[in-house]
Amino acid sequence: MSSQSATRMDYGAADLNLNVTSDLCKFLASFTAESLPENAVHEGRRGVLDWIGCALAGSQHPTISKLLTVLGAVGSAPQATVLGRGMKLGLLEAPIANGQMGHVLDFDDTHMGGVVLHASSPVLSALFALAEKRPIAGRDLIAAYCAGFEAGVRTGQGAPKHHPGGWHLTGTLGSIAAGAAAGRLLELNAQQLTHALGIAATQAAGMQQNRGTMCKSFHAGKAASNGVLAALLAQNGFDSSSEILEGKRGFCRIYSSEAAPEQILDGLGERWEITRNGHKPYACGVVLHPTIDAMIALAGKVPKSEEVVSIELRVNPLAVTITGVSDPKTGLKSKFSLSHTAAVSFLDGTAGIAQYTDKRALDPEVAALRDKVSAHMDESLRRDQAWAAVVTRSGERYEHLVEHASGTVDNPMSDDAIERKFLANAVPVIGEARARALCEAVWRLDRIDDVRDLLAQCA
Amino acid sequence: MSSQSATRMDYGAADLNLNVTSDLCKFLASFTAESLPENAVHEGRRGVLDWIGCALAGSQHPTISKLLTVLGAVGSAPQATVLGRGMKLGLLEAPIANGQMGHVLDFDDTHMGGVVLHASSPVLSALFALAEKRPIAGRDLIAAYCAGFEAGVRTGQGAPKHHPGGWHLTGTLGSIAAGAAAGRLLELNAQQLTHALGIAATQAAGMQQNRGTMCKSFHAGKAASNGVLAALLAQNGFDSSSEILEGKRGFCRIYSSEAAPEQILDGLGERWEITRNGHKPYACGVVLHPTIDAMIALAGKVPKSEEVVSIELRVNPLAVTITGVSDPKTGLKSKFSLSHTAAVSFLDGTAGIAQYTDKRALDPEVAALRDKVSAHMDESLRRDQAWAAVVTRSGERYEHLVEHASGTVDNPMSDDAIERKFLANAVPVIGEARARALCEAVWRLDRIDDVRDLLAQCA
Repeated sequence: MSSQSATRMDYGAADLNLNVTSDLCKFLASFTAESLPENAVHEGRRGVLDWIGCALAGSQHPTISKLLTVLGAVGSAPQATVLGRGMKLGLLEAPIANGQMGHVLDFDDTHMGGVVLHASSPVLSALFALAEKRPIAGRDLIAAYCAGFEAGVRTGQGAPKHHPGGWHLTGTLGSIAAGAAAGRLLELNAQQLTHALGIAATQAAGMQQNRGTMCKSFHAGKAASNGVLAALLAQNGFDSSSEILEGKRGFCRIYSSEAAPEQILDGLGERWEITRNGHKPYACGVVLHPTIDAMIALAGKVPKSEEVVSIELRVNPLAVTITGVSDPKTGLKSKFSLSHTAAVSFLDGTAGIAQYTDKRALDPEVAALRDKVSAHMDESLRRDQAWAAVVTRSGERYEHLVEHASGTVDNPMSDDAIERKFLANAVPVIGEARARALCEAVWRLDRIDDVRDLLAQCA
Repeated sequence: MSSQSATRMDYGAADLNLNVTSDLCKFLASFTAESLPENAVHEGRRGVLDWIGCALAGSQHPTISKLLTVLGAVGSAPQATVLGRGMKLGLLEAPIANGQMGHVLDFDDTHMGGVVLHASSPVLSALFALAEKRPIAGRDLIAAYCAGFEAGVRTGQGAPKHHPGGWHLTGTLGSIAAGAAAGRLLELNAQQLTHALGIAATQAAGMQQNRGTMCKSFHAGKAASNGVLAALLAQNGFDSSSEILEGKRGFCRIYSSEAAPEQILDGLGERWEITRNGHKPYACGVVLHPTIDAMIALAGKVPKSEEVVSIELRVNPLAVTITGVSDPKTGLKSKFSLSHTAAVSFLDGTAGIAQYTDKRALDPEVAALRDKVSAHMDESLRRDQAWAAVVTRSGERYEHLVEHASGTVDNPMSDDAIERKFLANAVPVIGEARARALCEAVWRLDRIDDVRDLLAQCA
């Protein structure tokens, strides 16, 4: 029998005397929008533009129609715009729709700084809903957007085994990012923001088991909604643990087999995580992007008259463990297929939305070429590297090595490329005039007085 | 460099050739309400009655007012009744309110069969919302309620390290239970129910770090709402992994450091988990209940004229690790204080709602007696056992051992006791006439044609 006195029974205190959650929230509640460095502001503009385009393109996906059938029937009064669909829903439902449409094509931005996080779908879906309630200046929206990146990415850095543990970070860290961003937009004080983070984190969910299903992008929408609810509750006096990240039964410990909460505050206010965000030229997970670059390069080298007998790939192991589906039957599943991706990007010379439809997944020519792909995991290759070879019937062998995939931090998309991607995504949904007006407005987002003018263009 | 052929890259399949999720859902979609054994039906009646009473009492808690301020402002159109508050909210919001009010007093039922799950708050809050949409027979409501227990409790049995890992099971397993119950009520087929379970599980959240805060009971409400959304999405063609429980990145593995998915199907259809549910005579966690029984017995033995100098407790270690708060400043925190509980139940001779208010937590007499409590963890004591001793100034020593706490499976509350508890909870909120009418209706719930008649009484 062990003995323990009543005076030593306190529960749940953080160890190491860390006050990670409250220190993080003190900073996020107090930095001024004017103090943001220009590169963070500019990444804000790029992120908003790219994300709106992805959401508009995604708004037409059949999955979104199923979702909206339900959300339209649950008793959701029109308060917040659903992008690209000419309708409004309640403050908790519109973010589900917008978040899911932002992520459903796997075309939205990716942060790879110790995490694999698609932050914009949860964060901007939360912010856009709240920005319809009262005038919000563009610069304040960008500041809240940056706050979301800080909270989400840094929490992931404090939970180093979170991704290997099987979690879909856009659902989990996305909730935290959305809660922090929404709280910042509502101008919560440090204590309230600490509670908002605690309420958001305690709703954080999303399993990798659901990759390739409609749930994957649903995680992003649910995270956005969780964040809005968390911020509104904290604003109205709801409390939570003040140690939700570092506590003994807090996020870093229970969502990760290793905890490093002290990492969360590292370089806070010096390094802005939004400046390490990446944008996708291709409509699938970033682990596939170096392979696509390689296959597009090879498509330009191999004469059309040559019959391909095999495609060999060398890739970072994650490209196989995450995207190892060999015979996808749906468009959503094909986004998790390295062999589909290699085959279709070689045949089509690109890997956009059209390469990941149900129709393309079932195409006999694509399926036949998929069967000729072999993938070799190579620990020496980084996640943004890939090597590919095409062998033809005549015995010719064509090879290509990609050092840094397009759209990564070391090989970023240019502003022009992001604008072209935006127009390609947005024009079919809202027409060229509105798309160009939106584009022009987002490039000067930090000088707009009321972002509702911009949101109305996305309806 | 390791090598792996493209044909062996499939992702996420279950090992051991288990089809746990789909086999579970086949059963839950197909058992008939008529096939339920009478003891399961009767536990259904007891559970509904006890839970409505807890929710009505909880509906008056200040936390619920804060919650309703937010839910009333997010654009939630009136579709489903909020208990005890004379208002309706949308199908996703009413369950948040009802689920939280059902759990906020820590007075609702507890299942201890390998889990610590308060299933009724998430499950019944989900079912009540959906039962307002069309006529549902009482027996079908009970069948769905039973399905919720099967899914929630059995998933917990398949994830044996889930509770020790820091999760609040009423949030996590509660989502799964609510999703399965809601799907059964909507008469989903086995495939749809498998998806409903997958969508519910992928939203499952709630951290023990939030014990003693407003978030703890919020988990129950959020779980209910998650379950409703999951079932409605599955009904409308939304999919998920078919292996959300047993898959490589599924629930049993990522929410628990040990996985035992094969346990989930053990005795399915023979053992009905609802028959192992417990009801609380006291308004706090069950780990405190044997101590309360002991202190109430000692309050009857120690003469009022005697001054207490010390209270000694021997308890199962969980009573210290879960409820070890030594100096609670709020009513919600005091529910996690073994020393508060021992002191206040000795002073008051009971441990109801009134013993866990902010006022009682701050009472100087209670605080003084709390300081005289010492607790000893004793591995040899079961969770429903406790020993207590009171030593007085005159040197007298009074001792009491409780073998099975009131309200546990081995010492259950009688139907009469549950009815008395219900009336005590309900009468102050809805008046005696309606409370007695509800009581009478719930005891014949399985013979009611449309449960909306009953729900209207709870408004």
